[in-house]
Amino acid sequence: MKHYQVALLGFGTVGSGVYRVLSENGAQITHREGINISVKRILVRDFEQEPNLHLAPMELYTTSFDDIVNDPEIDIVAECMGGIEPARSFILRALGAGKTVVTSNKEVMSKHWPAFEQAAKSTGAGLYLEATVGGGIPILRTILDSMQANNISRVMGIINGTTNYILTQMTESGRSFEEALKEAQALGYAEANPTADVEGYDAMYKLSILSSMAFHAHMPIEVIYREGITKLTPADFETARLLGYTIKLLAIGKKAGKRIEVRVHPTMIPNTHPLASVRGVFNAIFLTGHAVDDIMLYGRGAGCMPTASAVVSDIVYACHHDQRHHYMTFVNEESISNEITLVCDFICIYSIRLKVADKPGTMAAIAAAFAEQGVSLKSVIQLGEPDGTSARITFITHAASEFAVRDSLKKIEALDCVSAVESVIRVEE
Amino acid sequence: MKHYQVALLGFGTVGSGVYRVLSENGAQITHREGINISVKRILVRDFEQEPNLHLAPMELYTTSFDDIVNDPEIDIVAECMGGIEPARSFILRALGAGKTVVTSNKEVMSKHWPAFEQAAKSTGAGLYLEATVGGGIPILRTILDSMQANNISRVMGIINGTTNYILTQMTESGRSFEEALKEAQALGYAEANPTADVEGYDAMYKLSILSSMAFHAHMPIEVIYREGITKLTPADFETARLLGYTIKLLAIGKKAGKRIEVRVHPTMIPNTHPLASVRGVFNAIFLTGHAVDDIMLYGRGAGCMPTASAVVSDIVYACHHDQRHHYMTFVNEESISNEITLVCDFICIYSIRLKVADKPGTMAAIAAAFAEQGVSLKSVIQLGEPDGTSARITFITHAASEFAVRDSLKKIEALDCVSAVESVIRVEE
Repeated sequence: MKHYQVALLGFGTVGSGVYRVLSENGAQITHREGINISVKRILVRDFEQEPNLHLAPMELYTTSFDDIVNDPEIDIVAECMGGIEPARSFILRALGAGKTVVTSNKEVMSKHWPAFEQAAKSTGAGLYLEATVGGGIPILRTILDSMQANNISRVMGIINGTTNYILTQMTESGRSFEEALKEAQALGYAEANPTADVEGYDAMYKLSILSSMAFHAHMPIEVIYREGITKLTPADFETARLLGYTIKLLAIGKKAGKRIEVRVHPTMIPNTHPLASVRGVFNAIFLTGHAVDDIMLYGRGAGCMPTASAVVSDIVYACHHDQRHHYMTFVNEESISNEITLVCDFICIYSIRLKVADKPGTMAAIAAAFAEQGVSLKSVIQLGEPDGTSARITFITHAASEFAVRDSLKKIEALDCVSAVESVIRVEE
Repeated sequence: MKHYQVALLGFGTVGSGVYRVLSENGAQITHREGINISVKRILVRDFEQEPNLHLAPMELYTTSFDDIVNDPEIDIVAECMGGIEPARSFILRALGAGKTVVTSNKEVMSKHWPAFEQAAKSTGAGLYLEATVGGGIPILRTILDSMQANNISRVMGIINGTTNYILTQMTESGRSFEEALKEAQALGYAEANPTADVEGYDAMYKLSILSSMAFHAHMPIEVIYREGITKLTPADFETARLLGYTIKLLAIGKKAGKRIEVRVHPTMIPNTHPLASVRGVFNAIFLTGHAVDDIMLYGRGAGCMPTASAVVSDIVYACHHDQRHHYMTFVNEESISNEITLVCDFICIYSIRLKVADKPGTMAAIAAAFAEQGVSLKSVIQLGEPDGTSARITFITHAASEFAVRDSLKKIEALDCVSAVESVIRVEE
């Protein structure tokens, strides 16, 4: 039986979970998989400040990465530190030394993937990253090992649990963003500084990885349109409810021929869409392939054990493939090439809510401004306000050019009868 | 680049789909996977009666399996015939000749898996069956390649699209079973003889495979409790609606320690459960693992292209693993051993609807009969009938022994005040 030795980089939530799973399920993995896996070293930053130190024998710990990279017995390095440095350097050095890397670090992967991929190829080491997207949900393996026969034309995912928790509270309890955020923080679902989640950075990192795999073309974060959930108001949720929609922060990638668009933003989806019923901190990723049609994977997108489940799964997989690791074949190496065209002018359905003067001619003036830019309207809901002099109108467009919609809105904002463009939310059917 | 040659057995819906995907996506598979796959032979039963004969060059077809099993150039045999014979013999002969077998045939797999597994091991051939459960949904690969770190305690699946279509119609349009079945037949979702679907045989075959993989213990079909959907009435759906439940035909496997239970039956689940919103012919499988917690996979459980997607995915996977195929390590070889205990006396929540005389003492007599067997009641809904002399009462029990519930019902049926036990439906939370 082949024996594999693993080093863990970082011993926080994910790292300690990986240690626990490998310890508790080691015998089972050996029985089922015919391999033996043990943890040889654990890299920690500082002995004084490690809350999980009691979980493993003291002789496993080190504060020096050299002890790991120079140890010829270590086959696999599991990076569970997060952040850019020193994770980036450690990953590059491990791959350079021919050690397979398994990582849960979406930020460093989304920013340095091509360099990692190259380093891995150059030494024949493996590079595995299931845990970077969707926690315990095996979405990346599904794309690589189960969708090989498919041209994937669309990925749509709820890939940030914090924002999904907040949006679920805003939908179901009518809370404001601020109230829902505070609640999420109190429950440990949101960090004290919630920017990375609520402004969509975390979802952007993950979409970069997810869409790169789905489309076999590297999608750096710079090409992703990003919009967070901080501007959503109870009125948006009320509007969505009236229209039969649910608001979710979706990460969306679409490919049609060579044209690709990648974007993260609040999105209205019909209540009957499978993603609409994904509540709380759960994640789900919806894929469309030309052969398989629509499929969706649902589960816990974060947390100690679900993420550890994905990391250990990668470790086992890496062991089985130690003679033949798989590398991505991006059609565009390094940067966006002429193999693909990146689209910024999305063709979308838009929900647009205006605050207007409640007087004759208002609707006509607005409708004319849309028509001028070729934006055609599917439906209009007007609700009078209690003061009797103003009203809120929500327009749902047919599929329209993003640029044309923005141009219309510039003109509409300038109209005397319009006091505010209160919200613009994209719609996916 | 390595070249693999495939023979297709059967050229109906699935077989012709596999041929189409391999032809249309061959170049893409070669680019991404670094291997070349071509179809060398196609076995058909009878040239006269093959509707898809025009799809492939005539020289590929043969009516003799000997042409395939004796051809040393053929590496992989994709069995897409369905049924027991000659599929069983062909699979055994192919494996015996050292050829890897990929199959979409759930019936033959559920009835002869141990023999196939043994034949594969003896020659080192591969045996792949992703397409047998959930069509294009990669549920089996997920269990084997992404849940290695997990003890799976539960699988719950909607794995028969025909019955899910019928139940969706009964739920949403109030149709009777007969009406919904006719509609499904008219749309091609149900066969002229619908028994295999509506009586739960198809789901039973799939659950045998699914639970065997999930629990790493072979679950032959003989140990599966099976109940179809033919006895469900509009009154059952009305009751479920009042209680906040949806009725689905679920395939359920549970494991606690060595105790395993496997069953297929109509089940009430809360409307908020992710399986409740799986509509029409879609399938979904919900898994619970100790590390990953709950995950769900959703997609098209049947059809030419989704099933072909799974078969081709298996073919590509088999090519990559031609030096090291994976075999199941069932804890119970051949039959149920003392490694596991099969449970027939399920501990379940039950929804029980009775037609009773609307007179004093009725409720007391029934409640006493339940209490006598230790069946404790969670809620009771009584609705009077228009005639004023009878009523319908629905009892929801707490988790109770199946045997105790059956014993109670025998006594309750014999009561003067009870005119009928109209329905007994299990509930999963």
